[in-house]
Amino acid sequence: MKLWSKNIDSLKEVELFTVGKDREFDLLLAPFDVLGNIAHAKMLATVGLLTTEEAEILAKELHQIYASIQQHPSLPANGNKGEAAFVIQDDVEDVHSQVEFLLTQKLGDIGKKIHSARSRNDQVLVDVKLFLRAELEQTVHAVQSFFELLTAKSEEFREYLLPGYTHLQLAMPSSFGLWLGAYAESLVDDTITLKAAYDVVNKNPLGSAAGYGSSFPINRTLTTQLLGFADLNYNVVYAQMGRGKAERIVAMALANVAETLAKLSMDACLFLNQNFGFISFPPQLTTGSSIMPHKKNPDVFELIRSYCNRIKALPNEIMMMTTNLPSGYHRDLQLLKEHLFPAFTTLRSCMEMAGLMLSNMEVKKDILQDEKYKYLFSVEEVNKLVLEGLPFRDAYKKVGLDIEAGQFTYSTEVNHTHEGSIGNLCNHKITANMHEVLSSFEFENASGALEQLLKG
Amino acid sequence: MKLWSKNIDSLKEVELFTVGKDREFDLLLAPFDVLGNIAHAKMLATVGLLTTEEAEILAKELHQIYASIQQHPSLPANGNKGEAAFVIQDDVEDVHSQVEFLLTQKLGDIGKKIHSARSRNDQVLVDVKLFLRAELEQTVHAVQSFFELLTAKSEEFREYLLPGYTHLQLAMPSSFGLWLGAYAESLVDDTITLKAAYDVVNKNPLGSAAGYGSSFPINRTLTTQLLGFADLNYNVVYAQMGRGKAERIVAMALANVAETLAKLSMDACLFLNQNFGFISFPPQLTTGSSIMPHKKNPDVFELIRSYCNRIKALPNEIMMMTTNLPSGYHRDLQLLKEHLFPAFTTLRSCMEMAGLMLSNMEVKKDILQDEKYKYLFSVEEVNKLVLEGLPFRDAYKKVGLDIEAGQFTYSTEVNHTHEGSIGNLCNHKITANMHEVLSSFEFENASGALEQLLKG
Amino acid sequence: MKLWSKNIDSLKEVELFTVGKDREFDLLLAPFDVLGNIAHAKMLATVGLLTTEEAEILAKELHQIYASIQQHPSLPANGNKGEAAFVIQDDVEDVHSQVEFLLTQKLGDIGKKIHSARSRNDQVLVDVKLFLRAELEQTVHAVQSFFELLTAKSEEFREYLLPGYTHLQLAMPSSFGLWLGAYAESLVDDTITLKAAYDVVNKNPLGSAAGYGSSFPINRTLTTQLLGFADLNYNVVYAQMGRGKAERIVAMALANVAETLAKLSMDACLFLNQNFGFISFPPQLTTGSSIMPHKKNPDVFELIRSYCNRIKALPNEIMMMTTNLPSGYHRDLQLLKEHLFPAFTTLRSCMEMAGLMLSNMEVKKDILQDEKYKYLFSVEEVNKLVLEGLPFRDAYKKVGLDIEAGQFTYSTEVNHTHEGSIGNLCNHKITANMHEVLSSFEFENASGALEQLLKG
Amino acid sequence: MKLWSKNIDSLKEVELFTVGKDREFDLLLAPFDVLGNIAHAKMLATVGLLTTEEAEILAKELHQIYASIQQHPSLPANGNKGEAAFVIQDDVEDVHSQVEFLLTQKLGDIGKKIHSARSRNDQVLVDVKLFLRAELEQTVHAVQSFFELLTAKSEEFREYLLPGYTHLQLAMPSSFGLWLGAYAESLVDDTITLKAAYDVVNKNPLGSAAGYGSSFPINRTLTTQLLGFADLNYNVVYAQMGRGKAERIVAMALANVAETLAKLSMDACLFLNQNFGFISFPPQLTTGSSIMPHKKNPDVFELIRSYCNRIKALPNEIMMMTTNLPSGYHRDLQLLKEHLFPAFTTLRSCMEMAGLMLSNMEVKKDILQDEKYKYLFSVEEVNKLVLEGLPFRDAYKKVGLDIEAGQFTYSTEVNHTHEGSIGNLCNHKITANMHEVLSSFEFENASGALEQLLKG
Repeated sequence: MKLWSKNIDSLKEVELFTVGKDREFDLLLAPFDVLGNIAHAKMLATVGLLTTEEAEILAKELHQIYASIQQHPSLPANGNKGEAAFVIQDDVEDVHSQVEFLLTQKLGDIGKKIHSARSRNDQVLVDVKLFLRAELEQTVHAVQSFFELLTAKSEEFREYLLPGYTHLQLAMPSSFGLWLGAYAESLVDDTITLKAAYDVVNKNPLGSAAGYGSSFPINRTLTTQLLGFADLNYNVVYAQMGRGKAERIVAMALANVAETLAKLSMDACLFLNQNFGFISFPPQLTTGSSIMPHKKNPDVFELIRSYCNRIKALPNEIMMMTTNLPSGYHRDLQLLKEHLFPAFTTLRSCMEMAGLMLSNMEVKKDILQDEKYKYLFSVEEVNKLVLEGLPFRDAYKKVGLDIEAGQFTYSTEVNHTHEGSIGNLCNHKITANMHEVLSSFEFENASGALEQLLKG
Repeated sequence: MKLWSKNIDSLKEVELFTVGKDREFDLLLAPFDVLGNIAHAKMLATVGLLTTEEAEILAKELHQIYASIQQHPSLPANGNKGEAAFVIQDDVEDVHSQVEFLLTQKLGDIGKKIHSARSRNDQVLVDVKLFLRAELEQTVHAVQSFFELLTAKSEEFREYLLPGYTHLQLAMPSSFGLWLGAYAESLVDDTITLKAAYDVVNKNPLGSAAGYGSSFPINRTLTTQLLGFADLNYNVVYAQMGRGKAERIVAMALANVAETLAKLSMDACLFLNQNFGFISFPPQLTTGSSIMPHKKNPDVFELIRSYCNRIKALPNEIMMMTTNLPSGYHRDLQLLKEHLFPAFTTLRSCMEMAGLMLSNMEVKKDILQDEKYKYLFSVEEVNKLVLEGLPFRDAYKKVGLDIEAGQFTYSTEVNHTHEGSIGNLCNHKITANMHEVLSSFEFENASGALEQLLKG
Repeated sequence: MKLWSKNIDSLKEVELFTVGKDREFDLLLAPFDVLGNIAHAKMLATVGLLTTEEAEILAKELHQIYASIQQHPSLPANGNKGEAAFVIQDDVEDVHSQVEFLLTQKLGDIGKKIHSARSRNDQVLVDVKLFLRAELEQTVHAVQSFFELLTAKSEEFREYLLPGYTHLQLAMPSSFGLWLGAYAESLVDDTITLKAAYDVVNKNPLGSAAGYGSSFPINRTLTTQLLGFADLNYNVVYAQMGRGKAERIVAMALANVAETLAKLSMDACLFLNQNFGFISFPPQLTTGSSIMPHKKNPDVFELIRSYCNRIKALPNEIMMMTTNLPSGYHRDLQLLKEHLFPAFTTLRSCMEMAGLMLSNMEVKKDILQDEKYKYLFSVEEVNKLVLEGLPFRDAYKKVGLDIEAGQFTYSTEVNHTHEGSIGNLCNHKITANMHEVLSSFEFENASGALEQLLKG
Repeated sequence: MKLWSKNIDSLKEVELFTVGKDREFDLLLAPFDVLGNIAHAKMLATVGLLTTEEAEILAKELHQIYASIQQHPSLPANGNKGEAAFVIQDDVEDVHSQVEFLLTQKLGDIGKKIHSARSRNDQVLVDVKLFLRAELEQTVHAVQSFFELLTAKSEEFREYLLPGYTHLQLAMPSSFGLWLGAYAESLVDDTITLKAAYDVVNKNPLGSAAGYGSSFPINRTLTTQLLGFADLNYNVVYAQMGRGKAERIVAMALANVAETLAKLSMDACLFLNQNFGFISFPPQLTTGSSIMPHKKNPDVFELIRSYCNRIKALPNEIMMMTTNLPSGYHRDLQLLKEHLFPAFTTLRSCMEMAGLMLSNMEVKKDILQDEKYKYLFSVEEVNKLVLEGLPFRDAYKKVGLDIEAGQFTYSTEVNHTHEGSIGNLCNHKITANMHEVLSSFEFENASGALEQLLKG
């Protein structure tokens, strides 16, 4: 029987369809929803919409709800076991309603009073912003660890030469120091875009109500301070417009990190291929076959590449879902959570797994001693002659003739000294730049404020 | 006859295919290529690869080439007329070769000497970075102008109420002040992402040669200063990796501005629709029909929307063209110019045209006096009762019963006072935020350096 | 502690990362994996790699496994309750291994013998193809039902006029008959692309082994017939290349249906908006507010739009994940399941929900009687004069002058008679076209073969 | 001075912005616009809106315009030289107006009469459909030629073995016959999607006027026959909806062909890399260096890959530009031409260049004789033992032990016989499938009708 032949009065399908996976994803927002509630309650008391006593009772109860959420078995720290102290019940639509329900159940009328001067629209806005901010912070920390590993490995392998390719053709000598250091420096620029995303996210939409504000004399500056936001989304219509936009800009920044990881993985798969054979990994980290002893499948890098390429498609997906929506809230925005929220965990797993692989990577020595790589050094031979005083065109001609005559001689020693070259990796400069970007986040402002809020 | 049945010795098709539209797009890079040449020559003299005299002769000639490029008729300032003083000749592959050709033609051996310690790979890298930097600067200026118009219009129309929609359903009172101010504030966040793009772009790749550096004892820090870059792309492998990456990050920032414009255009098309009828434009700015006098087609806004949505697809296109390319140069990267370079001009035109439309927009007065909008005020009536002391649930019930009984009375006056609401737009706060972002670009560093370089 | 500081010998993380969500998504492939096993076993017996008796024993056991899968509680028909008879166990990597494990556990050596002349690569290929084929069939049936509803509704409302817009400006009279019929006809073209996807999918990759075939004298034509495929993917390298490609082409076809639904939803949201007010829905199907009695939020349509726009981003995501992968299997391909497989169910839910909405839609009568729509008829008045013999330019001028003079008279009756116009919707022609496309699928070939295979 | 400070009465910018590149791209539509005009005129005469004589005069004049367009220097056949006989003049907005202008200039009132019962909306719709149909036909022919080359090369190199990779790790023996044949078979499936696109395109929208039809008693079935369309877009609202949709579905089909070419190019770049060294090309088709004699840069394949990856981003771009536009014409659609129209030529160039490369490709003999590839044969050795009667697990164990003991012996002869394997490529079957798809286009119906129309 078609759905549309059924009696609409008793249809469960509409609710199922509209709630979708909200209960699952809202759980991720739960701690932030409580934080937003605490800040809102405190603020209401300062403008006379709650008494100080009521605000304190609410805060106390909210602290308890917060604690019960922290013990949720789905949180990694809790090892995925035990029964949940906090759940979004089947007959409750979303996390905001669940928190309201718990407050009202426990506190009666006081629980209802917290809902002045806000709407579910700005509640979810502030939840999403707090969630994104926290996830960005964790992501930046993961980037930092991975950066440190890359620079350490770059230094460790700085004497190991490697063919450098252009057009995938043998071109010049490179080194593992350069190769690994390049990905470290790539993360510096990626982190710059994470910082821009953080700045966009770190503004307070609370108080924008349904996107048009209200006539309540609320103090949005106060909730901004209490929640550790750097500033407000002032204009309430813009605050609402931030839904979809914050997600997009965050996804773009994640895509940048993802591209760095995906390219590294592509290189690693190539270098592990037997025709290259530059690197290898212990059997625990690859998959093999007892009758094909050469086979060391780099599944981990292939999956990192695939996960990361999927993350790179995310900004486009978000834009496709929000393009040409007029201003004002639309229910469409609800679905943005489903692919974005897990992307943070995925990206961090990818960094961890890439770190695991690189820290166990063995690098082949003396690759460039193989004669098949000899012409990599032809440009170096030209340059040496130039440095000895021969005009470039003459030096070039001489080396060309030597090669033609089969008399090309070369040294596999390289004497690159300029900034960022084989002999002068400048990892300390790159590290200094990374630290400058990292320190600009000032994560302590947000975390300090939230800690304070949870204290009292 | 199929191409592959022809004699390959005299085939023009291969060259035609590989050069593609390079001559057209390289022209945009020409001034920057000359600047890179000047800096490189000056640096070479400091490390003994050129004599001071040779460097001066080269610089003088390069200044002349620069001047001839500035007179190119394709540049807007030159009105698209007259014969070009500088062209990329048919038998010359690209702008780098053309400049080299001119130098050698005029200066003979000295012209050849400038090519030590670099490659076309890092030449095009530095050209692209300088081009992107200059275009970003122009774009930021255009954003600033448009921002100022939006805030001015927001103030001008701050008393004009407008229905606020959620789910595209009538919801609460809004105002033209809010609506226009929202787009102004949106530009602040967009500019934050432009700044991140600028920071990524504003680093010097020159000296990375073919992507693996060289054994020449060059001074990359010096060319960094001469070209006004904030820092180096240190690692030479990363410098090469910047191709495609800089383009992607810039395209993402452009996409953010584009989305702001596209959404504004969607709103404008809706508000101009006769069922809404909130705004109107003079006939010079719309297209109409003498027998459909109501028809005022918003072609300008539709095209802004379309151009901007196309720009929003650009980051994805760039990623599709660079995904899974291993590190090192690939010819694929050459094609990234074709859709990205014109996007700057397109986006600025869109801002200009949107500015033209908004500055000529007429806004309907007293929209909300129409009784069909009366329930927009129902929430306000509830809030008023709450502020008078009635508990929220009772207030809510009372208004609901009034409505049911056909006794709903309301005032169309709104008394929103909180930050960012109808009565307190906070445009000064938003403007302060914009100025903070704008001043962080420190454009004068780049422009000052280039000016100095061109002086001598 | 960082993952990379841990001892790799006892790490669970690598397995967790590489298995990912395979156990969850492989369950969807389980019935098809069994079918592929049955066909493979039968074929092996015909070429002497199994005895007839062994093949029969295997088939019998596989039938039992198939039956246990059919009772899986996660299948909608089983109401999501009860304990699973078939599961992929925690220490088993994927569905292929689970089926192998069950066979070997029960049948010992005979269970092992089925694995000649194939690899997990072509097993998953054939599973995916059979899954996609089955899902496409279900999707086409859902499209057909929705098509029938649209044409029925088009006929039901064929007398109800509606303003037709161009540039979102009032232009000409349209009708609900036209509007609904347009989406029906859109589905005909969408179904043409579903048929192309079906043809691409409906070819047998089994026997391609790891993508390079084998020296076993297998009979791939036989398994093709047994599984009801229309033909083989002949070339084994191409058979492997079909992974990612089949997914992409299917996703493109889904995107076409999704776009039809998304556009319909956008129209519906607009028409439900109070400024239009052309349609309405019973309160059970919208969300409202007791103090904003006008509010009828079209959440269902907004979510259809959002889900469908997300599906439209899927082909791009698949391309991003597969771009520039050389030929041959890569583990990257494993992740394609995660967003594509659920898209079928989502799309079908969207059609069901859209059908539910449309079958309960109330349409406003006499919309065009409102004088604000009068100029919609101006072109009709010109045309009438032309049909009466007046030259077009003169007719046009006359109506223009009448309008200017405030003397425009018009009739709201429309007399469109040509094919596809208000008075001649041609729904029978459109239906005939739909039937032609539908019958070209010849689903009975596939289902007949599978039925036969399961019988014995 | 900002644009918005200028007097709008004399602004050229608005017209410049709205016309954009229309004059350039409309030229591609010009011949089809004339064909649409001829068909429309003939039809008008049959329903009494023109006299037979008037229709003949119009047709004669239109034939002359058609001839002048055919001589346009921008058309490849005309060698890009000489002065254009047909241009879209600077003060004329688009091709439809230009044709109208020429008719009216020559024929006065009769020229005006052709404009009954149509609008520029359905004119451009029919032009675009005729253009896409013609371009699809040319593209299919190019695919056919390239397919024939691939199968011929597959046969030529069928004895040349090649390592087959999975996870980019050495896996099993493959062959150039398989590798080239795989891309041939890929084109068969791509052509199935081209056929679906052709079927969607090959329907007549003429007569839908501005998207809502008209009260003129026109005969749309007649223009359908005259223009050689297979059927009508019946519903006029749907006919308008076809704009953007036809472009999207065509772009999807082009993307499929593009992906086949891009993957082939990626493989070729890898195989040309010196670490693989499987193929080579004459110096005329690669770029090299006199001091790096090994360097044979595959610029042609890199550019094919890049152009094709850009085409793969096109369906997404089209969706981004049309998403969430309500039904009815929007000016946004005008810009879809700019990236789609040139994509046909680009894709055909890519096929020609790929054909040129492959027909000049030299393939290395006896690759697998190199001992480094020996384990490729280990699975074959297992299979041989199985075929000799040893149980699979025992065979597997024996080969594993031999390998461990350094006693692995193998033959580089392969005896694959099953369908689609090294020894049985089935290129004749693949070719038969290709012919079946090709013949289903029935191009002669369209071309025959147009020929007839141009005759008189």
